[in-house]
Amino acid sequence: MRSALVVGTGLVGTSAALALSERGVAVHLRDVDPVAVRTAASLGAGTVDGSADVVDLAIIAVPPALVGRVLADIQAEGVARHYTDVASVKAGPQQDVVALECDTVHYVGGHPMAGAERNGPLAARADLFEGRTWVLTPTPDAETETLNTALELVALCGAMPVLMGAAAHDRAVGLVSHTPHVVASLVAMRLEQAEERAVSLAGPGIRDLTRIAASDPQLWVDILSANAGVVADILEELAADLDNAVAGLRAMASTDDAKRSGGAQIVESMLRRGNTGRARIPGKHDGRPARYEAVAVLIGDQPGELAKLFTDADRAGINVEDVRLEHSTGQLAGLVYLSVAQGAAVGLEETLRARGWRLR
Amino acid sequence: MRSALVVGTGLVGTSAALALSERGVAVHLRDVDPVAVRTAASLGAGTVDGSADVVDLAIIAVPPALVGRVLADIQAEGVARHYTDVASVKAGPQQDVVALECDTVHYVGGHPMAGAERNGPLAARADLFEGRTWVLTPTPDAETETLNTALELVALCGAMPVLMGAAAHDRAVGLVSHTPHVVASLVAMRLEQAEERAVSLAGPGIRDLTRIAASDPQLWVDILSANAGVVADILEELAADLDNAVAGLRAMASTDDAKRSGGAQIVESMLRRGNTGRARIPGKHDGRPARYEAVAVLIGDQPGELAKLFTDADRAGINVEDVRLEHSTGQLAGLVYLSVAQGAAVGLEETLRARGWRLR
Repeated sequence: MRSALVVGTGLVGTSAALALSERGVAVHLRDVDPVAVRTAASLGAGTVDGSADVVDLAIIAVPPALVGRVLADIQAEGVARHYTDVASVKAGPQQDVVALECDTVHYVGGHPMAGAERNGPLAARADLFEGRTWVLTPTPDAETETLNTALELVALCGAMPVLMGAAAHDRAVGLVSHTPHVVASLVAMRLEQAEERAVSLAGPGIRDLTRIAASDPQLWVDILSANAGVVADILEELAADLDNAVAGLRAMASTDDAKRSGGAQIVESMLRRGNTGRARIPGKHDGRPARYEAVAVLIGDQPGELAKLFTDADRAGINVEDVRLEHSTGQLAGLVYLSVAQGAAVGLEETLRARGWRLR
Repeated sequence: MRSALVVGTGLVGTSAALALSERGVAVHLRDVDPVAVRTAASLGAGTVDGSADVVDLAIIAVPPALVGRVLADIQAEGVARHYTDVASVKAGPQQDVVALECDTVHYVGGHPMAGAERNGPLAARADLFEGRTWVLTPTPDAETETLNTALELVALCGAMPVLMGAAAHDRAVGLVSHTPHVVASLVAMRLEQAEERAVSLAGPGIRDLTRIAASDPQLWVDILSANAGVVADILEELAADLDNAVAGLRAMASTDDAKRSGGAQIVESMLRRGNTGRARIPGKHDGRPARYEAVAVLIGDQPGELAKLFTDADRAGINVEDVRLEHSTGQLAGLVYLSVAQGAAVGLEETLRARGWRLR
């Protein structure tokens, strides 16, 4: 890829433009907002002069509802050999593209799954997509060269491509991203009016569960609105399970032994199915669930304790795969959970004990 | 406190016995299971010979449904000057204690909020309660000396005491511990039958949300059964909010502008209330929500990278309050989020940049 046109210089468009410019691609920028496009250009994302030549790839970085219209317009202009977009939902834009009779042979939809805490070109970074998944949703009639050009974009941005259908994509992000967001907010809402003393008992479980409930509501309304039907469907399935859980718990609270036992069976079965679902979430390296062992170390609250701990762990020659800090309210001391590959915990524990760490 | 009797040598009873023995208290052990009590004694938790003298404190560490019965029995024996229990719910045992006409002047209920991944005396540790919250639920007629003896137990175990009423305790743990557990399982259940490709898109949000869904189902059935009515009540409140969210999302998916806007308002209001609830979860030191800033650092996957990072962070003289690792599926590189006190991020970023780290 030698040249590209980015239409829409918000966070995602400008970040892609920065990544391509850094790697020597000639990037042209367009936006309906002249301030946004000048800002992006001033950051080194590309040039605002119109390209006389046809570019290799046009990247449409506009809201989902506008993707079809913009694609139709720039294909009519003939600005590029290949076309893609970066909208966070894929089924709606694809329907629009077909309805507007766009050239679908030279177009492949895309969705880089990068963080979206802020918006606008000033929040853009060349490394926004580094290490992230970038979904591509080619239709059967898409040309291989178009798909390869989109794959090159993904590679130049340092992301990992995943191919899937548009509807499957929307259902997947509804399931693993949008639905959890709503659920985290619902649990956090229960704390809004809770007694101060009750909230003071909150531990790491609810803290981790509600972490994403701290996100920007306006931004998430936009995200949810583009996939609202899918998320509503999944939440209705979850609501049916929730009713079932309530019925099981009510039976467990009964004075009748048979009812209690029946309720316990319902609830235990749900917890077991939760185990199974949780175990399917991929580990970091291989896309398959990883098996880790955790080593729990007691630390004080002095600066330098973590540095010393990781230096000592390093001496064992063991790679720490994940780390989690746990503190209790009002306590200075805490626990550090170090996750290591299965079988590696014993060696790490020996090393740390020998260096004076207190293990749990 | 010079002497204690622990009735019930499971995980919690044996751990308390170990902590007291370590601090020089003469501990006597009892259990209906002779193997369990001999195991606890062999670990150094105490002695199994009956005490001829009356001990200072009897600690009842049996399932919630048995607390009242055991208290009545050992008070009839006159084994101790003061009595407490460590059951994870408090209202039911308190009702039993009153119904059985126990001496409530010399009894105060308690609940040490420590992890319960495994059970039995072999899982016990003297430091199980270190840094944890230990709720005490004294009734108005409880003697100050009894409360002080229970407070001494909490201090000897290294925990932090919190006083509250029995019903308030059960509602609080239902809200911040039991309900989140069920909800995490419900979300994880949705992944059980999901397509492999969909699950492969799972990121840190759903991973953190479902972490507690990996716990032992049998253990959690026991925990939930002792507080089933309270948890069912809270889940029904949550179910009403969930219905409301579904209605809002359905409206957002409508073709009617007014409906869409009304739906968005419902959903945005819920997300904002989620923000408010989430912000109430206490930070680690002060029991009040802490304000932290996060510094995001890109790291490779070499052993030693974390050690080097924390050593370099330490050089800035800044205390890292929390740490979170984020990886994408199939990627070697990752992001480390270091939380530091508000205002401290700039200095840390400067130090890390000067030492060659790539920041986000």
